[in-house]
Amino acid sequence: MFKPVAVRNIQRAELSVIDDLALLGVATTHEAQGRVGLMAPYMRSAWGTPRIAGSAVTILAQPGDNWMIHVAIELCKPGDILVVGLTADSTDGFFGDLLASSCQARGVRGLIIDAGVRDIKDLREMNFPVWSKAVHAKGTVKETLGCVNVPIVCAGAHVMPGDVIVADEDGVCVIKRQDAEAVRDLAKKREAAEVAKREKLQKGELGLDIYNMRERLVKEGFVYLDSLDDLK
Amino acid sequence: MFKPVAVRNIQRAELSVIDDLALLGVATTHEAQGRVGLMAPYMRSAWGTPRIAGSAVTILAQPGDNWMIHVAIELCKPGDILVVGLTADSTDGFFGDLLASSCQARGVRGLIIDAGVRDIKDLREMNFPVWSKAVHAKGTVKETLGCVNVPIVCAGAHVMPGDVIVADEDGVCVIKRQDAEAVRDLAKKREAAEVAKREKLQKGELGLDIYNMRERLVKEGFVYLDSLDDLK
Amino acid sequence: MFKPVAVRNIQRAELSVIDDLALLGVATTHEAQGRVGLMAPYMRSAWGTPRIAGSAVTILAQPGDNWMIHVAIELCKPGDILVVGLTADSTDGFFGDLLASSCQARGVRGLIIDAGVRDIKDLREMNFPVWSKAVHAKGTVKETLGCVNVPIVCAGAHVMPGDVIVADEDGVCVIKRQDAEAVRDLAKKREAAEVAKREKLQKGELGLDIYNMRERLVKEGFVYLDSLDDLK
Amino acid sequence: MFKPVAVRNIQRAELSVIDDLALLGVATTHEAQGRVGLMAPYMRSAWGTPRIAGSAVTILAQPGDNWMIHVAIELCKPGDILVVGLTADSTDGFFGDLLASSCQARGVRGLIIDAGVRDIKDLREMNFPVWSKAVHAKGTVKETLGCVNVPIVCAGAHVMPGDVIVADEDGVCVIKRQDAEAVRDLAKKREAAEVAKREKLQKGELGLDIYNMRERLVKEGFVYLDSLDDLK
Amino acid sequence: MFKPVAVRNIQRAELSVIDDLALLGVATTHEAQGRVGLMAPYMRSAWGTPRIAGSAVTILAQPGDNWMIHVAIELCKPGDILVVGLTADSTDGFFGDLLASSCQARGVRGLIIDAGVRDIKDLREMNFPVWSKAVHAKGTVKETLGCVNVPIVCAGAHVMPGDVIVADEDGVCVIKRQDAEAVRDLAKKREAAEVAKREKLQKGELGLDIYNMRERLVKEGFVYLDSLDDLK
Amino acid sequence: MFKPVAVRNIQRAELSVIDDLALLGVATTHEAQGRVGLMAPYMRSAWGTPRIAGSAVTILAQPGDNWMIHVAIELCKPGDILVVGLTADSTDGFFGDLLASSCQARGVRGLIIDAGVRDIKDLREMNFPVWSKAVHAKGTVKETLGCVNVPIVCAGAHVMPGDVIVADEDGVCVIKRQDAEAVRDLAKKREAAEVAKREKLQKGELGLDIYNMRERLVKEGFVYLDSLDDLK
Repeated sequence: MFKPVAVRNIQRAELSVIDDLALLGVATTHEAQGRVGLMAPYMRSAWGTPRIAGSAVTILAQPGDNWMIHVAIELCKPGDILVVGLTADSTDGFFGDLLASSCQARGVRGLIIDAGVRDIKDLREMNFPVWSKAVHAKGTVKETLGCVNVPIVCAGAHVMPGDVIVADEDGVCVIKRQDAEAVRDLAKKREAAEVAKREKLQKGELGLDIYNMRERLVKEGFVYLDSLDDLK
Repeated sequence: MFKPVAVRNIQRAELSVIDDLALLGVATTHEAQGRVGLMAPYMRSAWGTPRIAGSAVTILAQPGDNWMIHVAIELCKPGDILVVGLTADSTDGFFGDLLASSCQARGVRGLIIDAGVRDIKDLREMNFPVWSKAVHAKGTVKETLGCVNVPIVCAGAHVMPGDVIVADEDGVCVIKRQDAEAVRDLAKKREAAEVAKREKLQKGELGLDIYNMRERLVKEGFVYLDSLDDLK
Repeated sequence: MFKPVAVRNIQRAELSVIDDLALLGVATTHEAQGRVGLMAPYMRSAWGTPRIAGSAVTILAQPGDNWMIHVAIELCKPGDILVVGLTADSTDGFFGDLLASSCQARGVRGLIIDAGVRDIKDLREMNFPVWSKAVHAKGTVKETLGCVNVPIVCAGAHVMPGDVIVADEDGVCVIKRQDAEAVRDLAKKREAAEVAKREKLQKGELGLDIYNMRERLVKEGFVYLDSLDDLK
Repeated sequence: MFKPVAVRNIQRAELSVIDDLALLGVATTHEAQGRVGLMAPYMRSAWGTPRIAGSAVTILAQPGDNWMIHVAIELCKPGDILVVGLTADSTDGFFGDLLASSCQARGVRGLIIDAGVRDIKDLREMNFPVWSKAVHAKGTVKETLGCVNVPIVCAGAHVMPGDVIVADEDGVCVIKRQDAEAVRDLAKKREAAEVAKREKLQKGELGLDIYNMRERLVKEGFVYLDSLDDLK
Repeated sequence: MFKPVAVRNIQRAELSVIDDLALLGVATTHEAQGRVGLMAPYMRSAWGTPRIAGSAVTILAQPGDNWMIHVAIELCKPGDILVVGLTADSTDGFFGDLLASSCQARGVRGLIIDAGVRDIKDLREMNFPVWSKAVHAKGTVKETLGCVNVPIVCAGAHVMPGDVIVADEDGVCVIKRQDAEAVRDLAKKREAAEVAKREKLQKGELGLDIYNMRERLVKEGFVYLDSLDDLK
Repeated sequence: MFKPVAVRNIQRAELSVIDDLALLGVATTHEAQGRVGLMAPYMRSAWGTPRIAGSAVTILAQPGDNWMIHVAIELCKPGDILVVGLTADSTDGFFGDLLASSCQARGVRGLIIDAGVRDIKDLREMNFPVWSKAVHAKGTVKETLGCVNVPIVCAGAHVMPGDVIVADEDGVCVIKRQDAEAVRDLAKKREAAEVAKREKLQKGELGLDIYNMRERLVKEGFVYLDSLDDLK
């Protein structure tokens, strides 16, 4: 049942782990944790090509109402990322250059919002990274209560306050706080394992051979034809 | 981190409470619990106008792969509803008349799936209720593991195994198991309160008067004009 | 510039003309007035297959806020249709059985809304016709002023208060109040002209001959081939 | 390269085979031919729940221009289905009651169109089946040449003139003319094989057992837990 | 009722006011005029990040038909912006480098079109700003009459010929010609008022304090918890 | 009927012709071949503004399964472009930096895929051009057979192995292999013809005059009014 609350204190992953995850990026960390926790592909960077990671300060907002973002900023620490889920669809511009100024003053690293944002030119010039569903100049009101630092759903992903958010050009991934270190380690291994593969592929070796696919193709009934005419 | 598991035993709300919630319907229960827990409006009944409630047996499925639905049915009890979330978008037809037969044999009341279904004619004739994102005849494979009875996200709503699902023509609502009884009681009160209002409105009384809006309109600066010409 | 106002008095077309337009339907009246004034195809009947016409009482609403609908109902007369445009996107359920009760008490014939509605089962049972962009149980607030009986845009169509709205299974069409009678007359002529055509077509005569298309096909360079092989 | 042509003579599958395919329906025939040839899920019946099959008379139309439909009707034989692909997106209403009258006079069984249709009430009353991307009253012109009975793409499926179209509530499937008989036979076998399965499932036997899935689940690393707490 | 006309003479706002509005940008001017007149968020810059303002020369075009753009260009004056609304949906490429050449020769500052455009590379190299719904190479015909300099709807916004269009990375806003000066003045005040706020926020002052939100949060029942465990 | 095959040998157009087509670009070649063969406008470059042409090596893939891409790369020759169609909708990331490395080692010029891709940052840094429906980090499996070098549908366009693909900022166009030379020649003529037109337009001559539209406007009933008031 809905209760309008803000939770002051949340647990966060270690910043060094978070910074490692930022370097590893969305695709690698998402693979490393078993292909869960990815936001929907409609979440796109509002400008340019930033790459960040941070601890989620979560916001449950009402459509067209950004009141809770103001509440959340007070509770942020350097290294945090605001993550905003909504109780219903909205493309309004919940966030612009003033809120970004406030975020930067607090050390907030970016915004992930399942709604719209505005002042894109300013956000770029301020170098404040944002992933959103839409860009729209329509402003919001401050009339209806929501929550801060409660579990939310954002763009199809469940986010707990303190979870690690990784965001880059490939999208946005949520890593459970408790898994952050393990995912970091697995992702590094994965990255290392890819180095050898990449070298082989760059030399012209085929995935068919590297991954031993030929036998399985035959077993599954795959057939090579000389020409399209042979297909009848 | 992803682990392919099925949880055998889940807690369920009382069936009498669940059945009350079915009668109260989505709009009223959603209001009663403070306007949270609603799935996205793209979730529509695949046929006709059924109205159900039940305990969620949750499934985390891979796109185009319905293997886990088979695993889940074994764990269902009469009064359950299958709720399927996916790790990525898919409109494939995960569910048809054979799985519906299996569900009905187990007393499963319906299916909520953030993907596609097929055999709509059969589902209607069997009277098996389904809410889905799409209808598509494309079949699925059984190759990649998912989970059963873990927390999932379905159509933007977080669902725990054992949560109560209410579904009707207005959509699909998730009620936390622990809140089921309280929501039922609040929803009944809400429904009772609406009887008097409805009677007044039916007699021609205005919402403006019933809800005392006139004063607030003036206070906020709302102005009545005699004709559109007065707007200049 | 935005001013929060309601206009009390609007001009309406004659009810007999409006009722004729209802019988003629959307496709025919839309053709008769030269193929303008049609709302976007996402506007669909929320239930069943009603067919109505009425005078537009227009509402400019804020996303997720149905306050102005209450204001508008007071200004309605029997034969009116509420037409709701929004200042930004929303799929919330702005309208349900209580507002429908109020509307019916006032003789309002239906609702056209570029947003969501709820209580579909009740609306059907009450036989209150609704065309909307979505069905969603999410309720709205009453916090931000809009306007009543000012020019609006609804689903891509411009609507003046007092314009005639025709709605059926083909969608929703707006007819300028001043044009209502002329459009009615043209639509009747069109309908009459189609009777003869329909009879010819039912007997197996071809559109190619009825509309004299053969010569123009040749002139434009259209070629008949005996078989697909001749296409090279 | 585009050439504006109509092909007069096309080969068709046997009508008895086509009628068998109609009874078998989309889901079963689509499975039988190896899960290819299905149109996109946005293709929906414009009214009710018809189920048809027929030989494709194909039309390549320009957006907003239904000229070629008139050309095609002359080339139709009883048992045919018009299938319309477009050179670019359009939701205009290409087809209404007059063209449906013409089609019925010629024995055409239905229309599949990757665009809009109108006069839905009439189409229902005439019992003329239509699958389309949209319903919209916007009429079309007759200005730009297209083709009739050439290969087209409709809603993501490639269609050759004379291919068999099967359409029902599950969508629309294209069966290559040369495969029609083989697909019919395979679909019948599939249908027969499902009878025994359905009976078992109706008695409460599980898919897990019928399809021998338990061993493979273990092999793939799937784990059963007693309760959600065991997931840590 | 539709009449195919072009209006030769329209009133325009003062160019100095228009140029001020360009500098103020979409978000600020949209707020200044009370949050109306914004186009839908699907209208995006076809390339790069231009920022313009100008007087609307309006075009009502038929889907897939760009004839009226040629008519409109003759009626343009330096400082104008072409604004194209359609009678029905289309993503065709109505406008490319040739029309852009013609526009630039006439001093037209840009194009706003509720449809598609093409030759994006050329438009960028020519530095001709375009906001559109789509990019598509599909060309258009010149067969069906529309209108020039009549009231239109473009992307959900009503536009009168001579209204001021402001467009930047945040979208497209329409300012009534009669309001241009007042909106400019209000927007400047708004911009000035934001300077102080921005400075405070940059220093780490909170919106909660600047906007005096704390008291109202308490009054509305908002509660601070120490940890998520306190939420029960 | 579906058969899982790969065709080893396909015919290709001459590389010099292909390279000419790349320079001519999508809009011009699409016009030259009569406005057919264009993919849907949702196919966008995954990064930057590349412009390529090549011979199609086609892939029919299952949703969420990129096995066939590995099979296809072995069959590619320098100058080829991978074109991937799916049997059902998917936005999964089928392709990333490892496959791109493999492609570049083989001289593949780019990828066109009716699904998602990932590792965008790497693809940009490697300068490997990709057009796709989505960007998403969700990985794929290698479980279900598809086909290589058979006819496919990709984003609404039919593609035969060996057809020429032209892709740039305006989208993706398919040119039949047999037509490549003729289309090249026609496109060059078209380009040449536009030079003169462009010069005239740049000097301020109007399309109305260059294309002799004035007479036809009058004939069709187009009317010029002095002011909007004359429209009544």
